[in-house]
Amino acid sequence: MSEHRTKVAIVGASGYSGEELVRLLLQHPHVDLASVTSRQYAGQTLAQVFPRFAHHPPARTIRFCEPKVDLLARQAQVVFLALPHGVAAEFAVPLLQQGCQVIDLSADFRLKDPAIYKEFYGHDHPAPDLLARAVYGLPEIYRASIRGSLLVASPGCYPTGILVPLIPLLRARLVQPRGIIANSLSGVSGAGRKAEPAYLFCECHESVRAYGVPKHRHLSEIEEQLSLVAGTGVILQFTPHLVPVNRGILTTLYLEPVSPVSGPGGVSAVADPIAACYQAAYGEEPFVRLLEGKALPDTKNVVGTNVVELAWRLDPRTGRLIVISAEDNLVKGASGQAVQAMNIMRGYPETAGLL
Amino acid sequence: MSEHRTKVAIVGASGYSGEELVRLLLQHPHVDLASVTSRQYAGQTLAQVFPRFAHHPPARTIRFCEPKVDLLARQAQVVFLALPHGVAAEFAVPLLQQGCQVIDLSADFRLKDPAIYKEFYGHDHPAPDLLARAVYGLPEIYRASIRGSLLVASPGCYPTGILVPLIPLLRARLVQPRGIIANSLSGVSGAGRKAEPAYLFCECHESVRAYGVPKHRHLSEIEEQLSLVAGTGVILQFTPHLVPVNRGILTTLYLEPVSPVSGPGGVSAVADPIAACYQAAYGEEPFVRLLEGKALPDTKNVVGTNVVELAWRLDPRTGRLIVISAEDNLVKGASGQAVQAMNIMRGYPETAGLL
Amino acid sequence: MSEHRTKVAIVGASGYSGEELVRLLLQHPHVDLASVTSRQYAGQTLAQVFPRFAHHPPARTIRFCEPKVDLLARQAQVVFLALPHGVAAEFAVPLLQQGCQVIDLSADFRLKDPAIYKEFYGHDHPAPDLLARAVYGLPEIYRASIRGSLLVASPGCYPTGILVPLIPLLRARLVQPRGIIANSLSGVSGAGRKAEPAYLFCECHESVRAYGVPKHRHLSEIEEQLSLVAGTGVILQFTPHLVPVNRGILTTLYLEPVSPVSGPGGVSAVADPIAACYQAAYGEEPFVRLLEGKALPDTKNVVGTNVVELAWRLDPRTGRLIVISAEDNLVKGASGQAVQAMNIMRGYPETAGLL
Amino acid sequence: MSEHRTKVAIVGASGYSGEELVRLLLQHPHVDLASVTSRQYAGQTLAQVFPRFAHHPPARTIRFCEPKVDLLARQAQVVFLALPHGVAAEFAVPLLQQGCQVIDLSADFRLKDPAIYKEFYGHDHPAPDLLARAVYGLPEIYRASIRGSLLVASPGCYPTGILVPLIPLLRARLVQPRGIIANSLSGVSGAGRKAEPAYLFCECHESVRAYGVPKHRHLSEIEEQLSLVAGTGVILQFTPHLVPVNRGILTTLYLEPVSPVSGPGGVSAVADPIAACYQAAYGEEPFVRLLEGKALPDTKNVVGTNVVELAWRLDPRTGRLIVISAEDNLVKGASGQAVQAMNIMRGYPETAGLL
Repeated sequence: MSEHRTKVAIVGASGYSGEELVRLLLQHPHVDLASVTSRQYAGQTLAQVFPRFAHHPPARTIRFCEPKVDLLARQAQVVFLALPHGVAAEFAVPLLQQGCQVIDLSADFRLKDPAIYKEFYGHDHPAPDLLARAVYGLPEIYRASIRGSLLVASPGCYPTGILVPLIPLLRARLVQPRGIIANSLSGVSGAGRKAEPAYLFCECHESVRAYGVPKHRHLSEIEEQLSLVAGTGVILQFTPHLVPVNRGILTTLYLEPVSPVSGPGGVSAVADPIAACYQAAYGEEPFVRLLEGKALPDTKNVVGTNVVELAWRLDPRTGRLIVISAEDNLVKGASGQAVQAMNIMRGYPETAGLL
Repeated sequence: MSEHRTKVAIVGASGYSGEELVRLLLQHPHVDLASVTSRQYAGQTLAQVFPRFAHHPPARTIRFCEPKVDLLARQAQVVFLALPHGVAAEFAVPLLQQGCQVIDLSADFRLKDPAIYKEFYGHDHPAPDLLARAVYGLPEIYRASIRGSLLVASPGCYPTGILVPLIPLLRARLVQPRGIIANSLSGVSGAGRKAEPAYLFCECHESVRAYGVPKHRHLSEIEEQLSLVAGTGVILQFTPHLVPVNRGILTTLYLEPVSPVSGPGGVSAVADPIAACYQAAYGEEPFVRLLEGKALPDTKNVVGTNVVELAWRLDPRTGRLIVISAEDNLVKGASGQAVQAMNIMRGYPETAGLL
Repeated sequence: MSEHRTKVAIVGASGYSGEELVRLLLQHPHVDLASVTSRQYAGQTLAQVFPRFAHHPPARTIRFCEPKVDLLARQAQVVFLALPHGVAAEFAVPLLQQGCQVIDLSADFRLKDPAIYKEFYGHDHPAPDLLARAVYGLPEIYRASIRGSLLVASPGCYPTGILVPLIPLLRARLVQPRGIIANSLSGVSGAGRKAEPAYLFCECHESVRAYGVPKHRHLSEIEEQLSLVAGTGVILQFTPHLVPVNRGILTTLYLEPVSPVSGPGGVSAVADPIAACYQAAYGEEPFVRLLEGKALPDTKNVVGTNVVELAWRLDPRTGRLIVISAEDNLVKGASGQAVQAMNIMRGYPETAGLL
Repeated sequence: MSEHRTKVAIVGASGYSGEELVRLLLQHPHVDLASVTSRQYAGQTLAQVFPRFAHHPPARTIRFCEPKVDLLARQAQVVFLALPHGVAAEFAVPLLQQGCQVIDLSADFRLKDPAIYKEFYGHDHPAPDLLARAVYGLPEIYRASIRGSLLVASPGCYPTGILVPLIPLLRARLVQPRGIIANSLSGVSGAGRKAEPAYLFCECHESVRAYGVPKHRHLSEIEEQLSLVAGTGVILQFTPHLVPVNRGILTTLYLEPVSPVSGPGGVSAVADPIAACYQAAYGEEPFVRLLEGKALPDTKNVVGTNVVELAWRLDPRTGRLIVISAEDNLVKGASGQAVQAMNIMRGYPETAGLL
C-alpha cells in the first residue's frame, strides 16, 4: 500500500507554517506537491519566494497561484490549509464536497463545541456541522481515528506540547485534573510572519516577556481535550512567554500527583509509576522521546524535527510532579504533525519524510 | 552628609558581577574606585582587561592587583566581594576586623542558619559567628538595618526577582504561604564567565531549557526570607530556565489568594487589594516599577537599570494570582543592588550612580 | 560658563534615535528635557511609551505632544530633530528663524552640494540656502565650527565609522584617496523602528546579508567629506551588511598606503607612521579609542557608549593597510554624537552626560 | 551501480563537523554508519551524546568507541576524519594502507606544498608523500579527480565560500589575479566546540568582531588553489569576522575586472560576461545557486543545506566587481561537501542524502 504517490496542495503557503509544509513535502518520498497558493505571491515560483528551496528541482517550476477550490480539487488528493481561522473553514467545506482529504492547520475544526469556539474566537463557527466529522490530529492519541478520516484538525503548537505529556497521566489517574499549570516559552515564529512592531528584531532580541495573560485562545482546545480524557471539566492555568529564538516551545507543567509517589523521577521504570505510564504510552512512539537520567528537554535538540522531548521530576520537598516538554512549534507543533497525520491517512509509514 | 567621598575596592573583579560593579562604581558621583583585585589579571589596567571602560580616565590607571587584606583595608572604606561562596567569607572576616564595611555578593552571609548553608552548599559555614551580624541587603525590605550595618549580604539574582513581589503579599496575608510556584527565565550571564561547553554560544543560542530541577541552591535563601515574613515555614517550587539573552531574569509566580479577590488585576488601586498592597509597599520606591493597564514586564525594559518591574493578574477562571517580575540579573540582581546598599550605608541618596 | 542649564526639545522622539536621545538627555547633568514630540504618541508620557525610562522622575511627567514650531521655540533653546530626511528641513528653517539652535540627525543638512542631495535622495533640497550655514557635526574634525554654530548636521552612523578612521590618514597623505573600500556590518536598529517583514525577528536572527549594493545613500556624505579632506574627488566602495545584533557597526577599511610602510601595525608610535598619525589626531580625544597590542575592535565594547574603537594592521603580504572601527550606531553614530555637539555648542564639558 | 550500500565510519565525531556528519549520514539513503569514535564519549550511544538524533533508530544502538585503525578498517569502506590537523594524517596513512577510502576534513592534505604547510601550521607535514595522491575535494572544480580517488582533502569552510565564486572568473580571465579582497563573516560554530571564554554566549552575542588579521591559516589553501587556476601566484587579502549566528559564512569579494564590463550585474546572461561565465560554470550544478534580479545571498537561505548562493554586482562608480557568497560552514563548508565527495567516489547520485 505504501508505494502509491499522493498529490497534495497547500493553501496559504506564505506564512511560516506554510513554508515549513513546503520544506517537508518537497522532501517527502511519497508525495508530489501539485499546487501552492498565495494571493500575495501568485505568479512567482517557490524558488523565487523561498530561495532556500531552490535546490529542489520542483521548487523552480511550481508557481504560487490564487486559491481556487475547483482547481485545487482537480490537482490534489490531500489539501493542507495554512490559513487564518475563519478563512480555513470556507475552503474546507467545498474541498470536502469535491472529494479531497483536508488537513487544516487553523483552529477552525479543533473544538467539538461551537459555543466554545465563539467564546474564544469572537464569532460564530462558520461550519458547525463539520465539527463532529473532524478528527483532532494528534497521532499519539487519535491515530486510529485519523486513519479513516477525511478532515483532520491539526493541533496548535502550545496544545501539542501540553497534551502529549498530560494525556497519559490523566488517563492513568496519576495526576489531579485540577490545579494544572502550564508555563510555556515560545520562539518568535509562533507569532507568524506579521509585520508588527512587537515582533521586530530589536523588540524581541534581548527581550523575555509573558503575553496573553491570563486567557490565551489555545486554552479552549487544550481544556476540551483534557476534559475529554479526565472525564471532568479541566481548567488550566496557562502562561505563554516570548523568548528570542526562531523556533521551539518549552513547556514546564506543574502537577499534583493523585497519591504520594515514592520513586525518583526518570530513573527506574519499575519503581516509578510516572515512568511506567510514559513508557506504556510512548515507549514505541517514533516522535516522543522520553529522556533518561539527568537529561532535561532542550529546544535545540528538537528544532527541525518532529519530536517532542519529555522529562519529569518528582519534587520530594513540595510533593509536586514537574513535567517538561520541548518541541519545534513549526514541525511537531504545526506542519510536521500535519504531515504525520497525512502519512497515517494515506497508509504510508508514519515517519515517511519526517526523519 | 552626602558630599563626602568613599574609597571602595572590589575583590574578584574579573567575573560578570565584578565587571558590572566596575561599570557602576566608575560612574558613581561619590565614590573613588581605589582598588580592584584579580589573580588572573594582576598587573593589567582596567582598560586593558575591559576595553569598554577605557574612556573613563581612572580605568586607564587602575591596575588589577592580587587580593591582600592589609592593603585593601588601607585603601578602601567599603569592600565589595565578588567571589565564589566559601572564598568570600575568608576575606570578609579579616576585612571587618580591620574596620572595613563589607558588601558580599556571594551566598556566604545570606542565610541565618548554618545548617541550611551546609545542606545546600555541601560544606560547613566558614564563619558562622558572623551570620547574625550580616544584614540581607534587599533595600526595599531591610533599608533600616542596612543603614547601620558593617556586613551586607547582597541577595542573589533569582531571590531578588522572587522576594520583591512576594514579601508584601505574604506580609499582608493576601496569598497563601503554601503552594507557591516560581518559574524563572534567566539570561546566560547568570552562569558567570565560566568556560564550560554548556555556555558556549552555539549551545545556548537557539536553545531554551530548564536546569537545576527541582532543588536549586538559591531556594535556601528564598525560603528562609519568605518564612521569616510568613511566620511559617515556606517551601517553594522553583524552576530556573536558561534563555538566550545576555542579561535579564523574568519570573512568573503562581499564587493562591487567601480570600477570593474580585477586582481585575492591575487596574484600580481602590478595588484591588493586590494593587493597594503593592502601592503601599512600593509606590515610593525608586527601583520598583508597578506596571499599569495592559503592560507586562519585559526584560528589555530593565536591562542596564536597577529596576524591578512588576505586574499581576487575577485569573477568574482558576482563582489564582499571577505575578510577573523582570530585573537585570547583574544590576538589581547583583551589582546594582550592592551599590544601592552602599548608598544607604554611606548616607548617599539611594539612587546615586544608579539612574 | 558650564553651570547654566539648557532647555532642549526632541522632535520625532518615537524612533530608535529619538529614544536614545531621550535616554541620554534624561541623564545629562546640564540639560532639562522640555519637550518631546511624536504624532503617534501625543498625549502619553515618556514613561508610558518607553517603560525603561520610568524610573527617571521627569519621564513620568513629560508628555509627547504634536510638533508645533512656535511652542518648541518658546520651550527650548536647543531642538534635536530626529525626523526623516525632507521633513527635518521643514522644522529647521522656522526654528532657526525663531532663534533656536538646531541639531538635525537626518541627512538634510549633511551635504554642501544640493545637486548631490537630489542625486541620492531623489528630490530637490528643501532649503538649499541653509546648506552653507550648516556645520557637519563630527566633533573630532569640526569642533571649532560646531562651537559657534546654530545648525549642526549630525553625521550618519556609517559615515561616522568611516570618516573617523579615514580623515587623519588622508589629511596626512598616508593613504591613497583612490581605491578605498569600506565593508560595514550593522546591527538591525540601523533600519529604524519600521514594521517591515525584512526586519522581523525571524528574518534577521540567524541571518547575515549584504544590502544596498552598490550605491547606498550614505555614500554621498562620506564621499563629500573625504573629498574635502583629500583635495580630490574620492569615490568609495561601500558595502553595508546586516548582522543580528541590536546595535553596533563594525567597519573594515581596505587602504593603499602612499609609500611602503615598514613597521608592524599598532605597535610602536615611533616606528609606525600610522600609529603616529592616529596618536596625533586622537590621542587626546575622549571618544576615540586607539587599540594597542593584539586587540581588535569589538562592537560589544562600544555598545551603549559614545566611543569609536580603532585598530589597524599593515599586511606585509599584500602591502595594504587594514583599519577597523567599531561604534554604537545609535550613540556615536547618532544620538550620542548629537549630544556631544550640543555640549560643544553650549560650552559644557564635551563628555557631559556621555560617560 | 547506485544501489550498493556503503559502510562508513567517522573518526572524531564529537565536534560540530563530526556531529553534522552524523546527521547527514544517518539520513543518507545508501549508507550504513558502522562506527563513530570519540575518546571523550567512548561507551555512550549516539543518542545519549546527541539527543537530537535519538529518533533515528541506529542512533540508539551505535556506541562511540576508541579510534582503532584495525577495527575501523574492518568495519568501514569509507572513513571520514573529523580530527585536528596533524592528528588526521596519523589515521589516514594506515587506513589507506588497509584499503579504506579516506575523506579528511582537516587541513592535513589540502596543500600540495609541504613547505607552505609548515609555514602556516608551524610543524613539518606528517605524511608529505601522500600530498600528491590527495584530491582537493571541491566537487564543482575537481569532480573527475574525486571520482577515482582514495584520499580526499575536504576544503575548509572559508575556502569553499571564496573558491567557488573566484575560480570560474580567474579561469575565464575576467578578473585580475592581483588585489583580490575577501571579507568573510562567520557564525560561531566555525570556532568548534572549544570551551574557551572567547566563545561563551555572552562574549559573542551582541558582538561583531574581526579576528586573525592579517594572516589566517586558511589563506594557504585558498592561495594555492587560486594560483593553480590563475597560473600565477595569487596573494589574497582575507579578513574573517565573527558574527553572532550559529552557522553560516557570508563572503564579500572585491575584484578588478580585466576589461571594463558594461552590463548591469546579474541581469542578462547575454550582455553580462560575468553572468555568462557563472552560468557556464554552475548553471547545472545542484549545489550552486546563482541569484537573479535584486536578490542577494543570505545565510538563512543556505543554513542546513549544501548550497552556495552567489550574486554579483558591477559598480559603475568604482569599476569594481562585487561578488557575494553564502554557505553553511558546517554543510557545504565541511560535512555536506565531504558527503558530496563520498557520493561521487561511490558512484551515488551526487545529491543523495543532501536534498
